[in-house]
Amino acid sequence: MRLDLSSWQEVQAYLGHRTDIIIPIGSHEQHGPNGLIGTDAICPEIVARTFGERDSVMIGPTLGIGVAQHHLGFAGSVALRPTTLIAVIRDVVASLTRHGFTHVLFHNGHGGNIATVQAAFAEIYGDYSFRGEPAPTHLRLGNWFMGRRVMSLTRELYGDSNGQHATANEVALTYHAHPDQVKSVTMSPKVAPNGRFRDAADYRTRFPDGRMGSDPSRATPADGARLLEAAVEDLRDGHRDFVAGG
Amino acid sequence: MRLDLSSWQEVQAYLGHRTDIIIPIGSHEQHGPNGLIGTDAICPEIVARTFGERDSVMIGPTLGIGVAQHHLGFAGSVALRPTTLIAVIRDVVASLTRHGFTHVLFHNGHGGNIATVQAAFAEIYGDYSFRGEPAPTHLRLGNWFMGRRVMSLTRELYGDSNGQHATANEVALTYHAHPDQVKSVTMSPKVAPNGRFRDAADYRTRFPDGRMGSDPSRATPADGARLLEAAVEDLRDGHRDFVAGG
Amino acid sequence: MRLDLSSWQEVQAYLGHRTDIIIPIGSHEQHGPNGLIGTDAICPEIVARTFGERDSVMIGPTLGIGVAQHHLGFAGSVALRPTTLIAVIRDVVASLTRHGFTHVLFHNGHGGNIATVQAAFAEIYGDYSFRGEPAPTHLRLGNWFMGRRVMSLTRELYGDSNGQHATANEVALTYHAHPDQVKSVTMSPKVAPNGRFRDAADYRTRFPDGRMGSDPSRATPADGARLLEAAVEDLRDGHRDFVAGG
Amino acid sequence: MRLDLSSWQEVQAYLGHRTDIIIPIGSHEQHGPNGLIGTDAICPEIVARTFGERDSVMIGPTLGIGVAQHHLGFAGSVALRPTTLIAVIRDVVASLTRHGFTHVLFHNGHGGNIATVQAAFAEIYGDYSFRGEPAPTHLRLGNWFMGRRVMSLTRELYGDSNGQHATANEVALTYHAHPDQVKSVTMSPKVAPNGRFRDAADYRTRFPDGRMGSDPSRATPADGARLLEAAVEDLRDGHRDFVAGG
Amino acid sequence: MRLDLSSWQEVQAYLGHRTDIIIPIGSHEQHGPNGLIGTDAICPEIVARTFGERDSVMIGPTLGIGVAQHHLGFAGSVALRPTTLIAVIRDVVASLTRHGFTHVLFHNGHGGNIATVQAAFAEIYGDYSFRGEPAPTHLRLGNWFMGRRVMSLTRELYGDSNGQHATANEVALTYHAHPDQVKSVTMSPKVAPNGRFRDAADYRTRFPDGRMGSDPSRATPADGARLLEAAVEDLRDGHRDFVAGG
Amino acid sequence: MRLDLSSWQEVQAYLGHRTDIIIPIGSHEQHGPNGLIGTDAICPEIVARTFGERDSVMIGPTLGIGVAQHHLGFAGSVALRPTTLIAVIRDVVASLTRHGFTHVLFHNGHGGNIATVQAAFAEIYGDYSFRGEPAPTHLRLGNWFMGRRVMSLTRELYGDSNGQHATANEVALTYHAHPDQVKSVTMSPKVAPNGRFRDAADYRTRFPDGRMGSDPSRATPADGARLLEAAVEDLRDGHRDFVAGG
Repeated sequence: MRLDLSSWQEVQAYLGHRTDIIIPIGSHEQHGPNGLIGTDAICPEIVARTFGERDSVMIGPTLGIGVAQHHLGFAGSVALRPTTLIAVIRDVVASLTRHGFTHVLFHNGHGGNIATVQAAFAEIYGDYSFRGEPAPTHLRLGNWFMGRRVMSLTRELYGDSNGQHATANEVALTYHAHPDQVKSVTMSPKVAPNGRFRDAADYRTRFPDGRMGSDPSRATPADGARLLEAAVEDLRDGHRDFVAGG
Repeated sequence: MRLDLSSWQEVQAYLGHRTDIIIPIGSHEQHGPNGLIGTDAICPEIVARTFGERDSVMIGPTLGIGVAQHHLGFAGSVALRPTTLIAVIRDVVASLTRHGFTHVLFHNGHGGNIATVQAAFAEIYGDYSFRGEPAPTHLRLGNWFMGRRVMSLTRELYGDSNGQHATANEVALTYHAHPDQVKSVTMSPKVAPNGRFRDAADYRTRFPDGRMGSDPSRATPADGARLLEAAVEDLRDGHRDFVAGG
Repeated sequence: MRLDLSSWQEVQAYLGHRTDIIIPIGSHEQHGPNGLIGTDAICPEIVARTFGERDSVMIGPTLGIGVAQHHLGFAGSVALRPTTLIAVIRDVVASLTRHGFTHVLFHNGHGGNIATVQAAFAEIYGDYSFRGEPAPTHLRLGNWFMGRRVMSLTRELYGDSNGQHATANEVALTYHAHPDQVKSVTMSPKVAPNGRFRDAADYRTRFPDGRMGSDPSRATPADGARLLEAAVEDLRDGHRDFVAGG
Repeated sequence: MRLDLSSWQEVQAYLGHRTDIIIPIGSHEQHGPNGLIGTDAICPEIVARTFGERDSVMIGPTLGIGVAQHHLGFAGSVALRPTTLIAVIRDVVASLTRHGFTHVLFHNGHGGNIATVQAAFAEIYGDYSFRGEPAPTHLRLGNWFMGRRVMSLTRELYGDSNGQHATANEVALTYHAHPDQVKSVTMSPKVAPNGRFRDAADYRTRFPDGRMGSDPSRATPADGARLLEAAVEDLRDGHRDFVAGG
Repeated sequence: MRLDLSSWQEVQAYLGHRTDIIIPIGSHEQHGPNGLIGTDAICPEIVARTFGERDSVMIGPTLGIGVAQHHLGFAGSVALRPTTLIAVIRDVVASLTRHGFTHVLFHNGHGGNIATVQAAFAEIYGDYSFRGEPAPTHLRLGNWFMGRRVMSLTRELYGDSNGQHATANEVALTYHAHPDQVKSVTMSPKVAPNGRFRDAADYRTRFPDGRMGSDPSRATPADGARLLEAAVEDLRDGHRDFVAGG
Repeated sequence: MRLDLSSWQEVQAYLGHRTDIIIPIGSHEQHGPNGLIGTDAICPEIVARTFGERDSVMIGPTLGIGVAQHHLGFAGSVALRPTTLIAVIRDVVASLTRHGFTHVLFHNGHGGNIATVQAAFAEIYGDYSFRGEPAPTHLRLGNWFMGRRVMSLTRELYGDSNGQHATANEVALTYHAHPDQVKSVTMSPKVAPNGRFRDAADYRTRFPDGRMGSDPSRATPADGARLLEAAVEDLRDGHRDFVAGG
């Protein structure tokens, strides 16, 4: 079920028998020479929506812009300050809590969001903890790219060249979602360098074409189809564990 | 052109010859018994993307959650505080300004966003005005539902029963975008009451099924197709005027 | 009744039989060659105080500084960031709500404040809506310059040359309030240009003497006296409608 | 000179030969059984305007609402949070700095504002100190009620019964400013109790009629006239010292 | 008792019979040629801990960074913005209130903190005052350097050369606390100049070696031992008065 | 070298030949029946100070209060909201950057701080990335309890019963630092349960005595001495890598 395609009465009916929801969260930022700027939003969205359709779980609106300051040296990257994203998550959770949702699973596509989403959870829980009240809502963060099946399949498909940013597996998943957007680019070097980074200027110097440790030229729509299946299974496990109070 | 489906080099190439971008902005909130919660995001997004594809204009990520506190009495509505949305818009504009975009047109689907978006523009411009520097970026807000052609066609199609919220025309446009989501509901009363509102409790009391002044049961996918054409033409005019410095 | 000239026991007595209050809100910003910087505060204040005295309605302190970033290119203009004004309005409304005021009418003299005041209302209402509680206070914004009688009289007095900023009618009203401040200036051009604007540098370039579309040299104290009467009548209507729950 | 009654060209002319300005700052809060709610705004405003007229010094808009949380237990008191007032002062100083004012003297009427105004100065100066730039603007806080002549005359007029809040001298000054507002109230006890306080509930319990340590029934308009003269002289001294870099 | 060296059960036992706590608050900032950067944290900490040990009063964690923007022109100074320190104090008080502490005494070592701490108290109390609830927690600020015995002993030891910053008495107290850190420096001039200051650049110009009005070369560990005894006695008095509701 | 025990000239001299600094960061929160509330501040502080003394590296003031909302159900725990800690870190880094420090290593003792510190880094770097300037300061987070040698020694000493909170190794380290504070408590159960948690109420329900997965009754001062040596070696490695640009 997609929240955006439901009427309020349909949501109300859903809430009559279950109170969990999944919020895809991602980023719009450079993904190397052949990756889409929307990669980190497209991936968790397609995984969540596919799972939601199959298992009749409510999927909320995608929070498509994230903590991406380090990519601002590449055209088209859009970033929120961490404190802004905390405010967004706080308001979204407050809205869902208002309706009686008790389990909100953020299904994430961007490593740069992880710290800030966890800080947001502490900010939200803290509102209750300072007042000495139990928080009514369970919050959890999951990352599609860190599921057991996805990681295993990624190793099988790309070995060491999946990399850290503009990875082969995420590019493959977006190619499956948007097969008309496959971009054929010769990578130079074949596999990008790896390492740490700080701000946008530093990132651009270290990773001139935007990739970190990856060879995304190996990505194919067919790989993406297999990755989607793996990711949906991983999400099903994670979601079951979450709802069960694990 | 869609930013989310472009690579950074493609955006860089775009910026080499033009520097305008359109950001759809909407809301996820109840839209009456037969309207979709995502209506206000779906409408500006489809209008902007259709225009962007036809005229090769860059369309950025949709800001899909807006100022919707008054709808929180209906299940599924999601709201940002105005100060949160101001922070989001400030960061998005800062990102785009960083890349050299000089004209950012927010194409809006939700009346409740208008005041806050304008306040955000004053906040952003003010950063420059306080420092005595010229602002590098032109900002404008347009509303798809207030275009000349759209308003004329709406009157032709629905007369006085288009209404103020969960309007027939927006429902029609979403039905065109998602024909599998047409929901057949008998409205009671046929045309909803109209009036002012304050907070969510007050709204729910005055407008029990969420509609304001509308009879959206008249909406059809075919109407939506016509409305889309009108809205694209209206956006083309508004965009041309904006870029021309009007 | 003026809040500033009342004792707390007098306010308490007022609250014993009625719970409405009017807050004048304006700006301190350039108003062209012959207009006063305080124009947008002086106008709503004199209208509200005159009405308050005649009808025994409580008039609160004037919020005299507003959203005026676009005027900062002209000496003497003072501006608040929109987020600052939202905080001010939030605290003022919280104070009044604390005492039992249920209807707070902001009587405004500055177009640039409108969006931010409405955003502030959504911020305040939202505090209740997120918690699922009814908001105890009714908030409304009225603009003295948009009343029916004022607009009609303005057309009669100045036709098309009233303009958009440093308008003839507001200058006339301040001249009535401060007849010793009438400034005789030859306008060049006679009627100022009109159009859009962005930040302070842009405004100054487009509107070199600060006026927009106006010829305020036509303003007289006598016009101001007539405008005051019209504005008080308009406010009486707006206030009656507000308190009646319209 | 009053900023509110000047045109921007007049302010520009003033800035051509001097760059100092005085901003009256006060509060709207209960002032006991015979004191006006606006007392703390009226007093610094009349002192500053009288001085400004006599010495041709620019007087800016009065910041009439202050840190008055402890008075919210009495009807009509209006308060800003300290962080809100800091934001207001920051924006006002930024506006004045933009125009070239180099010396901004806040002339205060409310003891409760002192800490927050000083914190605001540190916040503003800090913006420059963190960047390693010299701050272009000199900021100072003066309190009309702490001037040498005012304190001496107050002792002469009221001895120990001037008190700490709703003092005889401030009531006298407002009675001089608004002789039609003299309120004749028998005080019980004659002199109010004194002491510390915390929040509004605590204040109301300790000081049931709002006064602290005072017998304001002794205040007369004639006293107020003498106090005004003393306060103007004190302000002249303080202003001279400030502008001279003392 | 030191909170940092207690287990939670020990704190719980303490709360079973008394509910007061002392929070040392200071700064890390230059203290002239022979003073330690941590002076303003070390002094209130040693005074509070000595008192706490003798009288079995709970001493919380030292808030060691304060409002020190004016010292940022000297290497090693660390500053918080006033609004940051307000947020810190708000969270610390909320935590302590949560556990049932009813009296929180901030024992301060830095004059620059005074205004901001008082503003923080008004911010915290205001949360209750706006809601019309009594604040559960008593807050007070005391300064070790302003106690009766400390001021008397300081006059005896150093006369007029104690000064305003990098004072002889605070240096002596740190030398008693850290006798291995005594730094022998010839002061030039012997007694530093005095006066006002604004931002960091201004401070550095006026007070080239960081001292204000002091000759801290006179400080000795032996003096510090005597000052500690005086300060502990002063704190005992202040604490007794506070807890007794004075 | 300890910043708090240095004079500003000594810091300036240090900056003349190297520009790195270590900031211990921790928390004050319950650490089970025999652990100290200050554990997470004491541990990184003693490790950093020992390293700093041996290797002449500058050690800044300990940020002793962290993100600990989940411990507020236990007496004595003190917490900052994540947004407050972000503001603190931002100001501390701005201060150090002002002086020319180029490498700031946060040496952390509390798992709950990790996400927020990383979010703070993105907030700080983002200020530069949005403006298109290179950030002058390198920021890194290290955790004493995650060093290679510490983890190895911990396994050797405690095997699986070190746990997740109120761990045997951190208790041992504080016992070494404060041997007079060894608290002998019989644990029941011997090894605490493990698992996830949300807010304070949830944490207290799941972990009734505060421990997570640990048996800290095995901690001894002698273990602590060995752990300190391991942690100093780990910090030396991490610091060398950081300063070398690793």
